[in-house]
Amino acid sequence: MLQEISDINLEYKNHKEDVKRLIDRLENEGINTNQVLDAIKNFQVAIPSWALGAGGTRFGRFPFGGEPRSLEEKIQDVSILNTLTCSANAISLHIPWDYPEDVDAIIQVASLHKIHFDAVNSNTFQDQPDQKYSYKYGSLSHVSHEVRQQAIEHNIDVINIGEKLGSKSLTVWLSDGSNFPGQMNFSHALQNTQNSLEKIYAHLPDDWRMFIEYKPYEPNFYHNVIQDWGTSYILADHCGDKAFTLVDLGHHLPNTNIENIVSTLMHKGKLGGFHFNDSKYGDDDLTVGSIKPYQLFLIFNELVFGQFYAKNKCENIAWMIDASHNVKDPLEDLLQSIDAILIAYTQALCINQKALHDARESNDVVLCQEILQKAFRTDVRPIVNEMRRLGGGAIDPIMTYRKLQVRQQLVQKRGSTSRASGL
Amino acid sequence: MLQEISDINLEYKNHKEDVKRLIDRLENEGINTNQVLDAIKNFQVAIPSWALGAGGTRFGRFPFGGEPRSLEEKIQDVSILNTLTCSANAISLHIPWDYPEDVDAIIQVASLHKIHFDAVNSNTFQDQPDQKYSYKYGSLSHVSHEVRQQAIEHNIDVINIGEKLGSKSLTVWLSDGSNFPGQMNFSHALQNTQNSLEKIYAHLPDDWRMFIEYKPYEPNFYHNVIQDWGTSYILADHCGDKAFTLVDLGHHLPNTNIENIVSTLMHKGKLGGFHFNDSKYGDDDLTVGSIKPYQLFLIFNELVFGQFYAKNKCENIAWMIDASHNVKDPLEDLLQSIDAILIAYTQALCINQKALHDARESNDVVLCQEILQKAFRTDVRPIVNEMRRLGGGAIDPIMTYRKLQVRQQLVQKRGSTSRASGL
Amino acid sequence: MLQEISDINLEYKNHKEDVKRLIDRLENEGINTNQVLDAIKNFQVAIPSWALGAGGTRFGRFPFGGEPRSLEEKIQDVSILNTLTCSANAISLHIPWDYPEDVDAIIQVASLHKIHFDAVNSNTFQDQPDQKYSYKYGSLSHVSHEVRQQAIEHNIDVINIGEKLGSKSLTVWLSDGSNFPGQMNFSHALQNTQNSLEKIYAHLPDDWRMFIEYKPYEPNFYHNVIQDWGTSYILADHCGDKAFTLVDLGHHLPNTNIENIVSTLMHKGKLGGFHFNDSKYGDDDLTVGSIKPYQLFLIFNELVFGQFYAKNKCENIAWMIDASHNVKDPLEDLLQSIDAILIAYTQALCINQKALHDARESNDVVLCQEILQKAFRTDVRPIVNEMRRLGGGAIDPIMTYRKLQVRQQLVQKRGSTSRASGL
Amino acid sequence: MLQEISDINLEYKNHKEDVKRLIDRLENEGINTNQVLDAIKNFQVAIPSWALGAGGTRFGRFPFGGEPRSLEEKIQDVSILNTLTCSANAISLHIPWDYPEDVDAIIQVASLHKIHFDAVNSNTFQDQPDQKYSYKYGSLSHVSHEVRQQAIEHNIDVINIGEKLGSKSLTVWLSDGSNFPGQMNFSHALQNTQNSLEKIYAHLPDDWRMFIEYKPYEPNFYHNVIQDWGTSYILADHCGDKAFTLVDLGHHLPNTNIENIVSTLMHKGKLGGFHFNDSKYGDDDLTVGSIKPYQLFLIFNELVFGQFYAKNKCENIAWMIDASHNVKDPLEDLLQSIDAILIAYTQALCINQKALHDARESNDVVLCQEILQKAFRTDVRPIVNEMRRLGGGAIDPIMTYRKLQVRQQLVQKRGSTSRASGL
Repeated sequence: MLQEISDINLEYKNHKEDVKRLIDRLENEGINTNQVLDAIKNFQVAIPSWALGAGGTRFGRFPFGGEPRSLEEKIQDVSILNTLTCSANAISLHIPWDYPEDVDAIIQVASLHKIHFDAVNSNTFQDQPDQKYSYKYGSLSHVSHEVRQQAIEHNIDVINIGEKLGSKSLTVWLSDGSNFPGQMNFSHALQNTQNSLEKIYAHLPDDWRMFIEYKPYEPNFYHNVIQDWGTSYILADHCGDKAFTLVDLGHHLPNTNIENIVSTLMHKGKLGGFHFNDSKYGDDDLTVGSIKPYQLFLIFNELVFGQFYAKNKCENIAWMIDASHNVKDPLEDLLQSIDAILIAYTQALCINQKALHDARESNDVVLCQEILQKAFRTDVRPIVNEMRRLGGGAIDPIMTYRKLQVRQQLVQKRGSTSRASGL
Repeated sequence: MLQEISDINLEYKNHKEDVKRLIDRLENEGINTNQVLDAIKNFQVAIPSWALGAGGTRFGRFPFGGEPRSLEEKIQDVSILNTLTCSANAISLHIPWDYPEDVDAIIQVASLHKIHFDAVNSNTFQDQPDQKYSYKYGSLSHVSHEVRQQAIEHNIDVINIGEKLGSKSLTVWLSDGSNFPGQMNFSHALQNTQNSLEKIYAHLPDDWRMFIEYKPYEPNFYHNVIQDWGTSYILADHCGDKAFTLVDLGHHLPNTNIENIVSTLMHKGKLGGFHFNDSKYGDDDLTVGSIKPYQLFLIFNELVFGQFYAKNKCENIAWMIDASHNVKDPLEDLLQSIDAILIAYTQALCINQKALHDARESNDVVLCQEILQKAFRTDVRPIVNEMRRLGGGAIDPIMTYRKLQVRQQLVQKRGSTSRASGL
Repeated sequence: MLQEISDINLEYKNHKEDVKRLIDRLENEGINTNQVLDAIKNFQVAIPSWALGAGGTRFGRFPFGGEPRSLEEKIQDVSILNTLTCSANAISLHIPWDYPEDVDAIIQVASLHKIHFDAVNSNTFQDQPDQKYSYKYGSLSHVSHEVRQQAIEHNIDVINIGEKLGSKSLTVWLSDGSNFPGQMNFSHALQNTQNSLEKIYAHLPDDWRMFIEYKPYEPNFYHNVIQDWGTSYILADHCGDKAFTLVDLGHHLPNTNIENIVSTLMHKGKLGGFHFNDSKYGDDDLTVGSIKPYQLFLIFNELVFGQFYAKNKCENIAWMIDASHNVKDPLEDLLQSIDAILIAYTQALCINQKALHDARESNDVVLCQEILQKAFRTDVRPIVNEMRRLGGGAIDPIMTYRKLQVRQQLVQKRGSTSRASGL
Repeated sequence: MLQEISDINLEYKNHKEDVKRLIDRLENEGINTNQVLDAIKNFQVAIPSWALGAGGTRFGRFPFGGEPRSLEEKIQDVSILNTLTCSANAISLHIPWDYPEDVDAIIQVASLHKIHFDAVNSNTFQDQPDQKYSYKYGSLSHVSHEVRQQAIEHNIDVINIGEKLGSKSLTVWLSDGSNFPGQMNFSHALQNTQNSLEKIYAHLPDDWRMFIEYKPYEPNFYHNVIQDWGTSYILADHCGDKAFTLVDLGHHLPNTNIENIVSTLMHKGKLGGFHFNDSKYGDDDLTVGSIKPYQLFLIFNELVFGQFYAKNKCENIAWMIDASHNVKDPLEDLLQSIDAILIAYTQALCINQKALHDARESNDVVLCQEILQKAFRTDVRPIVNEMRRLGGGAIDPIMTYRKLQVRQQLVQKRGSTSRASGL
């Protein structure tokens, strides 16, 4: 595939000149473009195993051909993305959807494709066929000790599987909550959740981290136990130094200033993970950057500041795309998401931080905006494309994917009615 | 069942006195309680066939025992609700989920249970196994003539089935829209929809009505073709006098003043149908009155004004409950919904309209609020209970349902793993 | 005035019977009505000095006659409210709007009317004529040390004034934030705010408490430094045991589950104060209970649980009404607000906590809702009226206020163009 | 000033090359850049007279130096903007704030500066000192005939003034509504409004148009009579062919798909005017493009389609900026707004409509997004700058404004405490 990509890259005749011109311009503006290239080269975003098939809504699901039928095939799909983009060298597994029957074989497949295992995800929002207690009324927060214990043990199992695979973190997304006023005692539910998380945390290996996700609603429509970052923060703070908050871009109420939350969590050293997607209404799980690209840029502005200028506060954040693909080819959707992330990141890296700092110090609000928007309005695609080209990837991943007829090959191999595990 | 209900009613020893006291008090305040009793007795709300089983979210579904396995059993379930409440004498069918193989037999079952057939609902948001074209990218608004034609014909089929059953209206809920900016040409999609609706309308029998539902989002998360009442109104107005807008309480953006929309549609003579439910975030489909009972009361305030004081404008509105039951027994959920509707309606009927009118004329804002809240704060349950008792129903439907062990009997008969068709 | 009120009370001929009936019924249901009466008698809500005149919007203000012209007259107004309701024995001052030139005289006036001084409020969101530095770009979070220092000193001044008056708490509402992306460094702004609050906290007398308010937006429309309860909590936690979060009902994004926030803050022992009002869109500052009375009830459900059943966690919460009166007589508006608060509180006290606990333990969601709504649907007004009558107040405060022609007298005394200080 | 601008333009040494490269690239992609240049040259956006001074919130206002003290000075300010940008050749007056005592003199000043008079705006949301009846409880919708008549006559006066000045349209923004449930009879209020608008419409000169604005809330916080585009549309449709809906970007509920509304109104030939601004929460009136630049682009995508591809539907739309300037120099804020509008318009003009059409016809969702985002990601600033340079304006308006020290000169001339009429 690498040779074919390389050949297609040659068709982009203006690429070299575009890159040169952009780099010249940015350097003139005081931007160290080598640092930019380095930064975006090192930026790797994990692909969740459940995002490789068609997604659905409660109203239905329109299947897509060539979906991966096994964990091995999911790893192959991630490898395709990584080969094209050089930015997706990890997969994030979901247990039990991705339970690896033969761990060694899986490790070998992953190793062959140079794909790492990112955070492992537990699932206590669905019942499994062989499960003793139901999670209909909650899991870690449940009124019954037995149900809580079952959910705790499931999380410990997930850690154990993760350890074997080389994963270094556990993501807990808790759907616990209630649909109706009165249904739950909020205070008891929070206390139960804290106690349960402590028990899971106690089993965390020394070099692991635990990410606690928050979400205001869905699948519960009145109350979620971990409804916002504040609740997640309190729980993580209580658990200890290896517990962090995880931000999913779609898990906020209308109009939330997410970039401010990101900044606060970094400021307190508690930003652990990030789920990228985009949305207009709720947890819409749309392609990253398809609805609010400027918000994405503003979030990366905070991330860049936290990582490069506030130091120490946020090393080792776990990046992942968490989207659903109702009407697009999942792999194309992910290629668009990866591209949008890198573009926003690059734009943020091209902000003149010194000038911004000075404008802020003098409360020159107009200039602050000019500086930010100058970076945002800059067409940084050539530099992202160049990063990929240098790494052996595609200048234009989507078009290359299409030229290489990847989907058609997958359909041929896997059939048009295969269905990936997931939602 | 009627005798058992009657026996249980006798246990409510304070009922008679409660009724008498409330009636005395209301009469003293100038409310004609006979008119109130008449009005609520005549208020009948249809039960959708798809609300009799457990609902779900995209994250999963927790099944419930004793779900109806056939259309006949669905009619039986509605009959149970109607027997207990005297307020639910109709069922609203959804084609193809409720395709009646043997129409005569179905009519007989319904007739036996004194259940009518309310509006029939078409479905072009899911693909059926034997379907020629997919609705993945739309139906009545689709770019392809063939797909639109298929969807039009499906709607005409639904009308035909409805005619046989004695239904008098068609509800069109169109999920058409797009998930991403650029995906659809809004203008063409609207025009296609209008053309398609006209063709369906042309097949509407003389004594039928067509209801056009609107919804801002879901299952599409960027753009819905009929996103708001204004779009529905324009389409209905274009189709003709038998086309109306249908309001579903959950189909609005955050903070929408729904009662104002209801008033405007009645003012223009275009309010055709109503789907009751409640929600905190989006189309949550929760039990009516469980989240915002005061909003429900304010809506009934408009409905009462439109029906009794503005005359003519809104006869014959089609009432239906459209909720989903993720954590409650579906029948209990519907009993709570029916009760909440009747309580809100009764409260609205207890507003002193003459006093309210005078207070408004003199801009006495404080008094306006006092008048409204006096009615809302009045405990009108005895009068609702009395209406049911007079009709042979239960003073307390939920507790009676439990005492009669209805669910247990249904589970025994239908099993604990039956699954109703629907979402 | 007391005799006149007592005379008017006699006109409510059904009152005694209504009270008796309600008490009988509640006692039958297992509610200790003496405890209820005690609880609501002890509930005292402070009136903010700035809510006694007409409010306005950025589009204008329609003045009201008889507004208080001085702090003395503001205290008189609060006294009127307290005499009528027995529930408003305190005033909350705002410095510099209410700067008491002659402290002793003010104390005497207050003492005469048996009005206490509740939390004192600082103001760093407006510039005062004699002020050295402007707060245009912030105060406690400002990039400039001098501005921050000025704002800190102002808060210390406010504490000093409060001490002289017998106040025991300081409320800090910080409007600091930015209108445009890029304008502020979020992280620095938060750190500056924390440092400033620490310095204010250091001057807090031993028996004082500091309340930190949060708000998502307005008057800044992009970013607020203390945008949510999480940020307030972190700051309060950092300051120490005497620092708490203050919840204003209007300071939340659309659809926020506020009762869950209230529960969490009580659970952590960090709920310090409460500003009552109601809203449909943003910080609308409408009459309490005029838009979402059920939400108010649900919040009181948490407060009752926290105060009576979770013990210790939330003694001594500072209650205040924070509303604006654009189209109502301010005193009538406040009377309606006080009534709505007491009704919601009483309803919450009438929840059968034992039954609710049992229903929750068995995940009987339907029953949980029945128990809550039973309390909400109960017409508890007689018991609230009786509490007032027993205390020498009015059975019906609004109608009594009107019969006594209080506003007319105030206009006669103060003129129809007086303007109270405030917004 | 023209010579100075021309001199400063010379400092932008890369400009010519940037323009050439961009034009080459766009032409290669099939974009007719001459048409683009023509289109953006012809795009003229009116400046509202009330946006030239500092804005405020209900919490206060921080004044700005050099604000225009008279209508003449306001025209001068607009002239400065137009000279720098070549895109703002009109002013929109607000009566009575801009009542022209000497019409001839004003016309002369405007003519001298080549500034036209765009839509005139009436004001029935504030009371004027000499006014007979108050608008506290409404104007065109008021329960009292006398108040409605006064408001109608005011609008007719505004038309008369506009006629003298050469204006060709009237904008009616009606703040009428209610703050509390019960306060108003929705149906009567709507009917009164319709009757009042008809009477105003009857006085509209033949070559005039009437624009009816809508807004969901503020300054009323429960109900607005014209709450949404649907209501405005119905009213405009009822009035006649010269009545249109006006869209203000800030007048929508959270998450509204505004571009869909724009498309629908154009489709029905009823889009009359446009007020540009940006917002995160409500009617925040922030600089255009400062919060959601992609949404602005998507709106222009609809406008371009309607104007160039759907023909006829929307000639002669009245463009205006309607922002408030709380923390920025008003003229700089407007320069940023004008720039953002032109950039979004240019990007939309650079969409390959043919390719987009084809992608839509084949439901290639991924490609549709690629096409749109390609245009959005293109740095079109050189072409906007070139349009300005060709017209004698500034390549970089903000920096030129600063270099020319315009604000300093205005302060010198007008003083630092002048205050423009307006909000």
